[in-house]
Amino acid sequence: MSVFSKNKEENFMAWYLDIVRRAQIVDTRTEVKGANVLMANGYEIWDRMKNVLDGKFKKTGHKNMYFPLLIPEKFLTLESTHFEGFVPEVGWVTKVGERDLEEIYALRPTSETIMYHMYAQWIRAYTDMPLKVNQWCNIIRIDTKDTKPLLRDREFQWTEAHTCHSSAEEAEEQVKQSMWIYGSFFDECCLPYIIVKRPKHDTFPGALYSVAYDCPLPDGKSLQIGTTHNLDQGFSKVFEIRFQKADGSHDYAYQTCYGLSTRVIAAVIGVHGDSRGLIIPPFLAPMQAVIVPILFKGKEEKVVNECKEVLETVKKAGYRVLYDDKDKTSGWKFNEYELLGVPLRIEIGPKDVEKESVVVVRRDTKEKISVKKDNINRTINELLEKITDELKTRAKNFLENSITDVLTYEELEAQLTLEKAGYIRTNWCTDVSCSDHIKEKFKANILGTKYGEEEKMFGNCSICGNEAKEVAYISKTY
Amino acid sequence: MSVFSKNKEENFMAWYLDIVRRAQIVDTRTEVKGANVLMANGYEIWDRMKNVLDGKFKKTGHKNMYFPLLIPEKFLTLESTHFEGFVPEVGWVTKVGERDLEEIYALRPTSETIMYHMYAQWIRAYTDMPLKVNQWCNIIRIDTKDTKPLLRDREFQWTEAHTCHSSAEEAEEQVKQSMWIYGSFFDECCLPYIIVKRPKHDTFPGALYSVAYDCPLPDGKSLQIGTTHNLDQGFSKVFEIRFQKADGSHDYAYQTCYGLSTRVIAAVIGVHGDSRGLIIPPFLAPMQAVIVPILFKGKEEKVVNECKEVLETVKKAGYRVLYDDKDKTSGWKFNEYELLGVPLRIEIGPKDVEKESVVVVRRDTKEKISVKKDNINRTINELLEKITDELKTRAKNFLENSITDVLTYEELEAQLTLEKAGYIRTNWCTDVSCSDHIKEKFKANILGTKYGEEEKMFGNCSICGNEAKEVAYISKTY
Repeated sequence: MSVFSKNKEENFMAWYLDIVRRAQIVDTRTEVKGANVLMANGYEIWDRMKNVLDGKFKKTGHKNMYFPLLIPEKFLTLESTHFEGFVPEVGWVTKVGERDLEEIYALRPTSETIMYHMYAQWIRAYTDMPLKVNQWCNIIRIDTKDTKPLLRDREFQWTEAHTCHSSAEEAEEQVKQSMWIYGSFFDECCLPYIIVKRPKHDTFPGALYSVAYDCPLPDGKSLQIGTTHNLDQGFSKVFEIRFQKADGSHDYAYQTCYGLSTRVIAAVIGVHGDSRGLIIPPFLAPMQAVIVPILFKGKEEKVVNECKEVLETVKKAGYRVLYDDKDKTSGWKFNEYELLGVPLRIEIGPKDVEKESVVVVRRDTKEKISVKKDNINRTINELLEKITDELKTRAKNFLENSITDVLTYEELEAQLTLEKAGYIRTNWCTDVSCSDHIKEKFKANILGTKYGEEEKMFGNCSICGNEAKEVAYISKTY
Repeated sequence: MSVFSKNKEENFMAWYLDIVRRAQIVDTRTEVKGANVLMANGYEIWDRMKNVLDGKFKKTGHKNMYFPLLIPEKFLTLESTHFEGFVPEVGWVTKVGERDLEEIYALRPTSETIMYHMYAQWIRAYTDMPLKVNQWCNIIRIDTKDTKPLLRDREFQWTEAHTCHSSAEEAEEQVKQSMWIYGSFFDECCLPYIIVKRPKHDTFPGALYSVAYDCPLPDGKSLQIGTTHNLDQGFSKVFEIRFQKADGSHDYAYQTCYGLSTRVIAAVIGVHGDSRGLIIPPFLAPMQAVIVPILFKGKEEKVVNECKEVLETVKKAGYRVLYDDKDKTSGWKFNEYELLGVPLRIEIGPKDVEKESVVVVRRDTKEKISVKKDNINRTINELLEKITDELKTRAKNFLENSITDVLTYEELEAQLTLEKAGYIRTNWCTDVSCSDHIKEKFKANILGTKYGEEEKMFGNCSICGNEAKEVAYISKTY
């Protein structure tokens, strides 16, 4: 039985909007369109994501820094492709108090320009590199499209890393390192994803090429949950990030950048949640287990004492555990913690006390297991690992089932007019006109080619029928 | 010998600006006045401060959330005193891309208005409280006064906590809890400070009363490093944060809020630093120890191996330790890590290898201690604790020496015309005209009275000679 008015399978967006509100992930009633409150539950998930990513950044030699939110207009206009790419979304600060500003400031839609202005002052010689800087910050993109909490916000939190290298090869290696950082992180989040090199016409403004991490959602659309860009010398030449090489000659720095945002929370909710509420991978869950007393008149004390004892035992082992002794029915509590996606529920009633056991219930499968009190921590450990593994397997299967091979235009049309199109794997001539065609006709996008793996073509371009040059992925997108 | 062009004692500000730049705390060359890069070293110190504070917030029932940066104009103008207090500093977003906005947005100078707009939607009954929310975020105050990195920035990072309670007594208790949180944190930072209740005319716009944490700096001026406000029902009546009591009647929430910012980094640098560089309390230090090899020709291998072994031993014990094997002289390295304020330096030369010992040098006192290799972790532990204790003692003494009792106007004038006035403890009639007088004549402020302790008066108002009503603290301020 669903606790939501709409089922995830039948109306994903209605389900999603309902769940993020009711599970206290986001509150949209701010009267600032597209800028919401990230509620305590959503915040804690993001905080855990940050911790894991930050560990990976530090392990790979990144340093955290913080750059200004306000960007002088002249910086933003320096790299014209980049600027034009962001123009429609940029918020401008033109007034302070009652005075008009002589020089107006942009609110950062991304930080290339202000960061590279600094890099040019920091980098003199090849020995100053590699320079790997990460920034955790808020981003403002006043997009005119429909806003959707965490999926498309006008203000959101993100990480953006920006690196400089003394050779194109090293920059290329950095692209791969960013993929390890993001890829292993998405794996830990039990997310399904493909890594795709975007077509030329969909490359980040100012970059040599862009690679994206695309995650399938249950409505058959794709969500871009992260990107890596090889900037080559495009920005370094404009911002004069020039260095002396070992042989005394000069060159411009080779750059990369990569970012991901609170969108990943939306992906985790969308992929794993069900008709009862959130399902959160254990390492991300604000609470990993909740203890619910099953009370009968006259036997309360024994149960309460047992709950407190188990609470201490589980807490000591380092798990995030909550004992809910609120004056509510156990049924109310079951619903509440299923909604919040707490991975394990520990039920303790009078019979359990007698048997010196507890009942552990898995949030994801609803499976009930009776375990001896003495084994509680071992069981929790095993179950949390098992849940993680099974969520990963489900994600893998979901991804595989999301991809359909398409040979002809008829097949393409049939697939794209399905309610849930998923990913289409097909042959493409690489002409932008074909991309434009499916965008106009089906509101679908050519995402690009699989990164790091040249897939074998299996026919002509399914859109125009001409000779194909690569195997591309197509989908409807967020 | 000083590594700075100016000594901290003779020209504090020149020394301060030099040290924050050279120790890579801040880089001001952003071309955005008052908005600087928080460099890796500064960022790591702030990150550690955040962790400690966040632990205290969680322990006391605060939840982290994130609210929008952009605040609708109408929210800001609701509480008129509050609005007027911030008007001159507010940055306004009036344009997006090329379009003018119909409704303009303020960049948050503080978040009362947007948060309380949400609180009004969340709070219905007394059971919804206490509500304790903390926010980590960036703040924009486009102050026209002289900007100084970390001391007075136009953009800075801070924590702001905002609480709601069902009675005035509970709000009063919350004020005290905030003082425990901030006070114990400042203690851990080894900072000297006094807690002062601000005079009526210097109360936070919209609050019942304000309490501030004032830290003396070596130039005899006072730095406000945190504030707590008892808002009573001032905001809740305006924002309609109304609740039902247990007896069925209705009331408005009783509120408090408290905040502190990256200014605390400036206080730590200013109070502890010396002519060689930073001195960072060990728990805040990005690196707690650095191993420097003392190399002699032909004996390099043994020393390098020993360094690596010690590195592993110290790392395993959980200390943040760095082994610097860069191709630089040991003298260069000594200077570098003294500048950066690494609390301990571990020197290992050929003789040390022979004796199976290492030399540990304290950054704060320059004391050198030879210890057996096997005792290294115990020694590090003892020394880090000792350094912390001694920094605390120094801070306490510094605070005590900063306070001068003043009875007459002549004494007041003499003290305030000294190069380093420090804190003046004197009798005050509480008239604003006296406050205005010393502001105009000496550019000094009446900070207020000691919080939580009624000090015994010892004369008439030292400014006007009339009967005094309280013992007040006066100082020049940042």
